Amino acid sequence: MSSPSRPSGRASDQLRTVTIERHYTRHAEGSVLVCFGDTKVLCTASIEDRVPPWLRGKGEGWITAEYGMLPRATNTRMQREAARGGQGGRTMEIQRLIGRSLRACVDRQALGERVITLDCDVIQADGGTRTAAITGAYVALVDAVNVLMKRENLRRNPVVGAVAAISVGIYQGVPVLDLDYAEDANCDTDMNVVMNDGGGFIEVQGTAEGHAFRREEMDAMLALAEKGIGELVIAQRTALEMA
Amino acid sequence: MSSPSRPSGRASDQLRTVTIERHYTRHAEGSVLVCFGDTKVLCTASIEDRVPPWLRGKGEGWITAEYGMLPRATNTRMQREAARGGQGGRTMEIQRLIGRSLRACVDRQALGERVITLDCDVIQADGGTRTAAITGAYVALVDAVNVLMKRENLRRNPVVGAVAAISVGIYQGVPVLDLDYAEDANCDTDMNVVMNDGGGFIEVQGTAEGHAFRREEMDAMLALAEKGIGELVIAQRTALEMA
Amino acid sequence: MSSPSRPSGRASDQLRTVTIERHYTRHAEGSVLVCFGDTKVLCTASIEDRVPPWLRGKGEGWITAEYGMLPRATNTRMQREAARGGQGGRTMEIQRLIGRSLRACVDRQALGERVITLDCDVIQADGGTRTAAITGAYVALVDAVNVLMKRENLRRNPVVGAVAAISVGIYQGVPVLDLDYAEDANCDTDMNVVMNDGGGFIEVQGTAEGHAFRREEMDAMLALAEKGIGELVIAQRTALEMA
Amino acid sequence: MSSPSRPSGRASDQLRTVTIERHYTRHAEGSVLVCFGDTKVLCTASIEDRVPPWLRGKGEGWITAEYGMLPRATNTRMQREAARGGQGGRTMEIQRLIGRSLRACVDRQALGERVITLDCDVIQADGGTRTAAITGAYVALVDAVNVLMKRENLRRNPVVGAVAAISVGIYQGVPVLDLDYAEDANCDTDMNVVMNDGGGFIEVQGTAEGHAFRREEMDAMLALAEKGIGELVIAQRTALEMA
Amino acid sequence: MSSPSRPSGRASDQLRTVTIERHYTRHAEGSVLVCFGDTKVLCTASIEDRVPPWLRGKGEGWITAEYGMLPRATNTRMQREAARGGQGGRTMEIQRLIGRSLRACVDRQALGERVITLDCDVIQADGGTRTAAITGAYVALVDAVNVLMKRENLRRNPVVGAVAAISVGIYQGVPVLDLDYAEDANCDTDMNVVMNDGGGFIEVQGTAEGHAFRREEMDAMLALAEKGIGELVIAQRTALEMA
Amino acid sequence: MSSPSRPSGRASDQLRTVTIERHYTRHAEGSVLVCFGDTKVLCTASIEDRVPPWLRGKGEGWITAEYGMLPRATNTRMQREAARGGQGGRTMEIQRLIGRSLRACVDRQALGERVITLDCDVIQADGGTRTAAITGAYVALVDAVNVLMKRENLRRNPVVGAVAAISVGIYQGVPVLDLDYAEDANCDTDMNVVMNDGGGFIEVQGTAEGHAFRREEMDAMLALAEKGIGELVIAQRTALEMA
Repeated sequence: MSSPSRPSGRASDQLRTVTIERHYTRHAEGSVLVCFGDTKVLCTASIEDRVPPWLRGKGEGWITAEYGMLPRATNTRMQREAARGGQGGRTMEIQRLIGRSLRACVDRQALGERVITLDCDVIQADGGTRTAAITGAYVALVDAVNVLMKRENLRRNPVVGAVAAISVGIYQGVPVLDLDYAEDANCDTDMNVVMNDGGGFIEVQGTAEGHAFRREEMDAMLALAEKGIGELVIAQRTALEMA
Repeated sequence: MSSPSRPSGRASDQLRTVTIERHYTRHAEGSVLVCFGDTKVLCTASIEDRVPPWLRGKGEGWITAEYGMLPRATNTRMQREAARGGQGGRTMEIQRLIGRSLRACVDRQALGERVITLDCDVIQADGGTRTAAITGAYVALVDAVNVLMKRENLRRNPVVGAVAAISVGIYQGVPVLDLDYAEDANCDTDMNVVMNDGGGFIEVQGTAEGHAFRREEMDAMLALAEKGIGELVIAQRTALEMA
Repeated sequence: MSSPSRPSGRASDQLRTVTIERHYTRHAEGSVLVCFGDTKVLCTASIEDRVPPWLRGKGEGWITAEYGMLPRATNTRMQREAARGGQGGRTMEIQRLIGRSLRACVDRQALGERVITLDCDVIQADGGTRTAAITGAYVALVDAVNVLMKRENLRRNPVVGAVAAISVGIYQGVPVLDLDYAEDANCDTDMNVVMNDGGGFIEVQGTAEGHAFRREEMDAMLALAEKGIGELVIAQRTALEMA
Repeated sequence: MSSPSRPSGRASDQLRTVTIERHYTRHAEGSVLVCFGDTKVLCTASIEDRVPPWLRGKGEGWITAEYGMLPRATNTRMQREAARGGQGGRTMEIQRLIGRSLRACVDRQALGERVITLDCDVIQADGGTRTAAITGAYVALVDAVNVLMKRENLRRNPVVGAVAAISVGIYQGVPVLDLDYAEDANCDTDMNVVMNDGGGFIEVQGTAEGHAFRREEMDAMLALAEKGIGELVIAQRTALEMA
Repeated sequence: MSSPSRPSGRASDQLRTVTIERHYTRHAEGSVLVCFGDTKVLCTASIEDRVPPWLRGKGEGWITAEYGMLPRATNTRMQREAARGGQGGRTMEIQRLIGRSLRACVDRQALGERVITLDCDVIQADGGTRTAAITGAYVALVDAVNVLMKRENLRRNPVVGAVAAISVGIYQGVPVLDLDYAEDANCDTDMNVVMNDGGGFIEVQGTAEGHAFRREEMDAMLALAEKGIGELVIAQRTALEMA
Repeated sequence: MSSPSRPSGRASDQLRTVTIERHYTRHAEGSVLVCFGDTKVLCTASIEDRVPPWLRGKGEGWITAEYGMLPRATNTRMQREAARGGQGGRTMEIQRLIGRSLRACVDRQALGERVITLDCDVIQADGGTRTAAITGAYVALVDAVNVLMKRENLRRNPVVGAVAAISVGIYQGVPVLDLDYAEDANCDTDMNVVMNDGGGFIEVQGTAEGHAFRREEMDAMLALAEKGIGELVIAQRTALEMA
């Protein structure tokens, strides 16, 4: 399967170069710089010994996520959300997605009454920031949980399986994997897929930008996503095996 | 296909009773009360002769949506968002979805430099408020556009085709159509599907609440959604044929 | 007393058609749709087992109110307060008035340490929304208190008497009862009067819009208000006697 | 008419000592410190050569008011509204009242396309801050308009007549004039009355705090208000006659 | 040392007339009107029996400050911060400075678990509002602490020494003491200095407005500040010796 | 001059290792990662062809700065300012300082009607983030201005000289250069100094944390700052000479 038309020259089923750098900053229990090509996201995992009010005394924990973009991560400067007085709809949508996705691989009773916050801050954007964020946040989460298990002598590992995410789309009529900004801005359909390492779907969010997509296009996109996520899960594992 | 286990006793592929009442309030160019069973949403379409700053002078219009819930539309009272000082993440996510969905059936150049705002306010909630909102907002939009075409003597109809939405899910292991609140609060997977009257997909948003869903479950859910949306498009047409 | 000049053709001492529909939505302990002609307000009463901080441990309860308008309740669309980031001055003024008025008929010690919130949301506006809201909220309050008395086996009824409200004004030199929007926008004086069923005044808020009003005009307006509120109290009673 | 029971020992129809000090600060076009006994309000009038958007090009001006309390104007410190992130309901209600009251004595066409803002800041509070504010703001307004007339060579005086305000109430069963804090916190009924110098009513805002008030009590309160406002108008005139 | 060029005609090392009026308002434990020429700031000190969360149970107290300007304290009206929805950067910077400065003369363990809030509200501005505020707030603090010591029978005086502040600058090439607005708006360098009565520095904040300042200019400014603060400490002492 | 007591083992007049990496991200006109030891700040410079309202039509430009910290740049997670609804006092104080400092080396008429925004985002914090930010932002500014000069064919270089900043303090009685977090949290005095490459002072901000500092301590700190800034200016120059 090849697509000479992709601006980057990639094959239609080809991921960008993916790198996952652990221990990127030193304070957080987990700290990962994930790059999907020119998209660079710093993902930190922070453990706190508290739970949100609605979970008090229930013996289980919570995973939450926050997402941000540095003002000049993008081609033209965007106003800082802190200066504008609050997070916009897009930010809220993305951080809710990241949180739900990561909760899908956590046994919250094994975690105990603790919150792990995944902060995903985009240093440089070139499309696919939310899928890079989920993929990197998983590695930061594992690192943080390992710190926690050692520190608190937990009996059971709260992390169950792995979670990764990738975007797929229809670009100039062809289904393609891992859209960069040039593709994302001009595609007909854009779909973000989150899966676990057992091949199960956690989230599927497809949007027709130009015209509606047909069932067979959806099938082709899902197949590309399955392939890409398989490769991302291997990249996560490889990164985690390093010292 | 039947599922004796649904709390409502409905068959697994059965919609709730759907009603679409036009001209529900008198000021808006389009005003529709849509009911999916006990879920009741008032959808109004308002025309304004202005465009957002980024569209000025481009000769095309915009469709946007806002979503709200009356504080006691739900079982326990929710704090009013105006009193809390802003719209929450869930509200923003839903109103962005409604806006994107309706834009998919509008020719924005035929509309000209105008904004149509779709206000979807939930009077009573019992699951599926966003899908009811999209389905009802489409009818309000058509009514408003008809007013506009007459008033401004437009040559081309800005509305192209129809858009409707339904939720599907896996409830106690069985794929079911149009989840009510009792099902929604206890299901394993919840998927909102927006389609046009030509069978094309506009949006697919699936979320694993309990455990990840398999490809064959997704296929079953999509088939249910196609059936349900077919029925909703007929209900929209029937409502629009009345005086 | 007749005034051929009223836009609606009503006599100067004539109310619009008043309807009070109980059990309008199903979740709230009290839920009433009140219509003063084309003005339609949904009033719900919600009971919560908590008190504001300043009443903790004092053995008495609280009645509070919130007011909102759907964006297209009015002739031109108004910006949603939740989207604008907060409630405006007019909204705050009205909801404070509704709260004070209803507290005037409640024995807060008989209520016990509970809050009842009256949410008054204007579905359609044609003048007099705050007086309709007070009149309807009273009926919702009685329904909610009856639920509470049964559920909690209260010995004493916390509701003492009845409260209703109406607007009066000077329109083209003539004192008139129950102003609709066409009158309200063009009157010289506008006065909102809240009374109990014993003929006592709870609130009187009169404003000279054009020129100052004389004492004899005030007397005429108060007499009209007394007549109108007498009729509203009967309408409340009649509605409450239904099953 | 005497009432030995007033905490201050005043007769029931007796104002507190009223002082009106003009030119209190030096930057504003009008600047007045008004004292009703221990209630001290600084009222400034500021002229700006602009109008609100809805008045552009209409050849008329606008009068608006803002109200604030220094955090320790009161017996216990109140949180600063600027620190809390916005003005509360009570503040908005009062500043809207001040604005409406002063607009009642201004010919907005004679004013031309200008805004006069009346800032009323309570330095020390002992009841009756809003009535003191209106009474003092009138004097500041006259001073500012005189500056304007000279500077811009206006042909017609935009100020038409005078406006003053006072509170009245039922304290321990007796109608009394000009409530101080000790009375205000314990009265059955509290009414703020705004009148012009021709004896016409601009605003009447009466609230039953304890039990509802009867028509004859209202009549007694209005009579007291008329007397008190007569004296305030003289105090305003005397102050304005000074150099 | 003389500088004929100062707009006010003052010598280069001459303060404006400084007055410190205690007991200016009656509710606060300490209440001082401080004037540096035409700059007038009302400083109140309020005692509360609580501490911020991070100090609970530590047996020590806190001193904090808030700063505000009445909208027409300045030559052209500034928007009210409460109406704008929050405090701006300049306000926050100044109130943080006032708080730090006053904490420097307080033994927080002797104070016990209490907060003293210093509210500094500018009634009229003519340059140097923050230095006047610090100088006046010290006197209000001493008054409040004396009330507290008597009321609570404290063994140790929480106030240790005195704190005062003054501005210095380079105006038309000449180092000058206590800049008024005319100088402040046109100077090359502006420095605020806070010192204690033992000649120690608490804060030094110098800013080059025009071109960078040299070390010898800094030395000259610091010498002027030492002289001015010496005089202010005497003014504080004199004010505090009065009944 | 040596101080065996510094936690890092540095000499008292020794900077941490300083690195300045240009072109760190690819979208901004200037993008620099500056490290003062473990303190890492990303500084981007963004050019926009607009000016703030108060500069329109004046033929000159503006330099402004914004400062942020990633939530887990610090030892314990801090709440995200965008989520909290606004920038805090510390953030505002720092970004105002950065802006003023950089404006001191810019000829705003040579810049023309443009804004350059310096975004300084702390990736990892270990004390001295504001001084690192100023030092790095200068290099980003030069890169951006070079882009601008080429693109717009400017005749005159808007950057005049260089600006750098360093902290100094009194740690355990000894004046030290470039405080890290361990020192900053325990020092008696903390002073931030901004200078230009000609040895002139732009800003001096000294704060006594423990007890007041004496004039001779101030002299010693200023001498250390002059030495440190001399070295930083060389580091800036070296970085800018690279391709």
